Amino acid sequence: MENPVITLTTDFGYKDPFVGIMKGIILDINPVAKVIDITHGIGPQNIHEAALALEMSFKTFPRNTIHLVVVDPGVGSTRRPILVVTEDYYFIGPDNGVFSRIFALSERLLVLHISASHYFLKKDGSTFQGRDIFAPIAAWLSKGIEISNFGDPITDFKKITVPSAQMTGQNVIDGEVVYIDRFGNTMTNIHAEKISEMTSNNSENKIKVLIKGKEIPFKTYYAQVKDTGLYALINSFGYLELFVRNGSAARTFGIKVGEKVGVMLR
Amino acid sequence: MENPVITLTTDFGYKDPFVGIMKGIILDINPVAKVIDITHGIGPQNIHEAALALEMSFKTFPRNTIHLVVVDPGVGSTRRPILVVTEDYYFIGPDNGVFSRIFALSERLLVLHISASHYFLKKDGSTFQGRDIFAPIAAWLSKGIEISNFGDPITDFKKITVPSAQMTGQNVIDGEVVYIDRFGNTMTNIHAEKISEMTSNNSENKIKVLIKGKEIPFKTYYAQVKDTGLYALINSFGYLELFVRNGSAARTFGIKVGEKVGVMLR
Amino acid sequence: MENPVITLTTDFGYKDPFVGIMKGIILDINPVAKVIDITHGIGPQNIHEAALALEMSFKTFPRNTIHLVVVDPGVGSTRRPILVVTEDYYFIGPDNGVFSRIFALSERLLVLHISASHYFLKKDGSTFQGRDIFAPIAAWLSKGIEISNFGDPITDFKKITVPSAQMTGQNVIDGEVVYIDRFGNTMTNIHAEKISEMTSNNSENKIKVLIKGKEIPFKTYYAQVKDTGLYALINSFGYLELFVRNGSAARTFGIKVGEKVGVMLR
Repeated sequence: MENPVITLTTDFGYKDPFVGIMKGIILDINPVAKVIDITHGIGPQNIHEAALALEMSFKTFPRNTIHLVVVDPGVGSTRRPILVVTEDYYFIGPDNGVFSRIFALSERLLVLHISASHYFLKKDGSTFQGRDIFAPIAAWLSKGIEISNFGDPITDFKKITVPSAQMTGQNVIDGEVVYIDRFGNTMTNIHAEKISEMTSNNSENKIKVLIKGKEIPFKTYYAQVKDTGLYALINSFGYLELFVRNGSAARTFGIKVGEKVGVMLR
Repeated sequence: MENPVITLTTDFGYKDPFVGIMKGIILDINPVAKVIDITHGIGPQNIHEAALALEMSFKTFPRNTIHLVVVDPGVGSTRRPILVVTEDYYFIGPDNGVFSRIFALSERLLVLHISASHYFLKKDGSTFQGRDIFAPIAAWLSKGIEISNFGDPITDFKKITVPSAQMTGQNVIDGEVVYIDRFGNTMTNIHAEKISEMTSNNSENKIKVLIKGKEIPFKTYYAQVKDTGLYALINSFGYLELFVRNGSAARTFGIKVGEKVGVMLR
Repeated sequence: MENPVITLTTDFGYKDPFVGIMKGIILDINPVAKVIDITHGIGPQNIHEAALALEMSFKTFPRNTIHLVVVDPGVGSTRRPILVVTEDYYFIGPDNGVFSRIFALSERLLVLHISASHYFLKKDGSTFQGRDIFAPIAAWLSKGIEISNFGDPITDFKKITVPSAQMTGQNVIDGEVVYIDRFGNTMTNIHAEKISEMTSNNSENKIKVLIKGKEIPFKTYYAQVKDTGLYALINSFGYLELFVRNGSAARTFGIKVGEKVGVMLR
């Protein structure tokens, strides 16, 4: 690969040397690899959050980018390490469902059980697979090692259920808050396309957004709002989001991940 | 450009994938660009803090570095994206005054309204201009696209008032705390040069520093102090700073941004 | 050097532009250097924590990597800047004992007092030696400047006492907690080798682990545990660690750095 890029998404945080250690391993094997942090701020063992962060970001990277994810409640267990190959990208991480959104979004999909332990740093059980398995596999892949050398295809890879918005009744979408960002913006799982289906593409005038029994005004962008109330818009990832302009919707209005949100025709 | 460098200064924090997303966009357009984080810890929508972080850091980078800033209370509004060209650097970000300190420090200055939407990722309104406008423009600029292709020069770009220390009376400088760092050191807007003007370069012996009605001893470096009292020195950016050795001046003495600080002749 | 790598380990945190500033300096001197963050989350002035982070990570990097450390309670004092040369790596930082674990782990060791101030950014006293001394020295070293140009060898470099586990009595190891990671796992200074010495390599069945007067079950990996009790294992760095599966041992059981831990034969 020319200009190989490896991204990292973990729940390691920023206090410990764990991320640096993985970068050391990668550079030791492939000195020309570019290692880019997507985020290390995933909540500890929060597979759903990691899956969402990956969905938001993977497509912005160059073709053939290797996306490495280490968020792993079952670390060190017999849970398999996997390599996922899609049309344009590679994904390396634990077989715990963290790639479920990638599975859903990819037309072509090949999943390998990584078993070629001669590429591993440590042969037996490891409690730091990011260092001992995932980082070296990503680095060797970035050097052009054929994927078939890493293990055999599997079809029984694990999928987790992604909370998806449902059309209930003719003119009602039932969704929920799935992510809260640094600013306190609360992103739902209600995609603009789902709203468009219901409204025939004239969404702003025709819908109402409901949370905690209250109706929330629908806007096009943050700065359209002058006061500090709660508003809704379609965010930059295409999902309905509840926000407070230059404030925290989550904190001000006590909104948490899982909070139910409804959209209906006026 | 050879060895192009793009820096990032944002209020995105370290929890979300937003910074990684911008890096993906940049590398997709220019695979050889080096993307360097200045900080993503700017307080949400805090333009003043971002302006100061930029002043502290921009000159340490190689000539022709592209400094990208995304701190933007008016995101998504009609507020313009701008490209600032100085003697040695490029700056890309919102026209909200975040580059005011750069304007003041630069002899040659050209400001363009970025309007060439064919370089944008998303043509219409965006609530994530870092991804859709600033990152791609920075990447294309780093590939050598002529600046005139990005838009037309403007002169009505926005400036914010930077709180500056004032000489009030013959022998008194009135300033204030403008930044508190991780360690709790409290940096003022009183520059060593201003003190030198007043003292004719013999500052240590001739001045007294006042905060909250108390006189603070003036030192040359942190380790000169053995106790845990409040002291003053000229910090590594040339500004008067109040500190507690190996402790937090801000926390221990309740000092906040905006706190008044005075310097006067003995 | 081909593909030069410079790592950074500091207590600068993620709020301020200080890390970015150091990277700017390095790239200005050597545009092809790769600068990799090990961590900037070291506790303020915590030399012991920095020494441990370095021990955990330095060997994973390519040969000739330059490890730069800025954790420095005596910043700006007469405390010397040093360059440490071992079999495979370079280390640059303050002569305050932060490299003590490197000294202990290295067979060949050369320590230089960095005194060649013509390489410094600022000749006189500096309160930001990371920027003014360490970063430029690392960058020039990465460009191939001979180490003898930076200063003269010294032998009176500072060492700090690393808290080490002791065999007390015939069949008891007395250790303590030395590090708590992001997840709340509490790592001790009792190395697996020390346990093996005592048990003749059959550790799991023969030992008991004691903390706060209670016996803690010994496991092989995290996922082996199904409940939320406190357990012990040998972690990925070879040290005994107390953990709660997918929880925080430190928070749940009130374990702090310095807490005594004992291992004894059943």
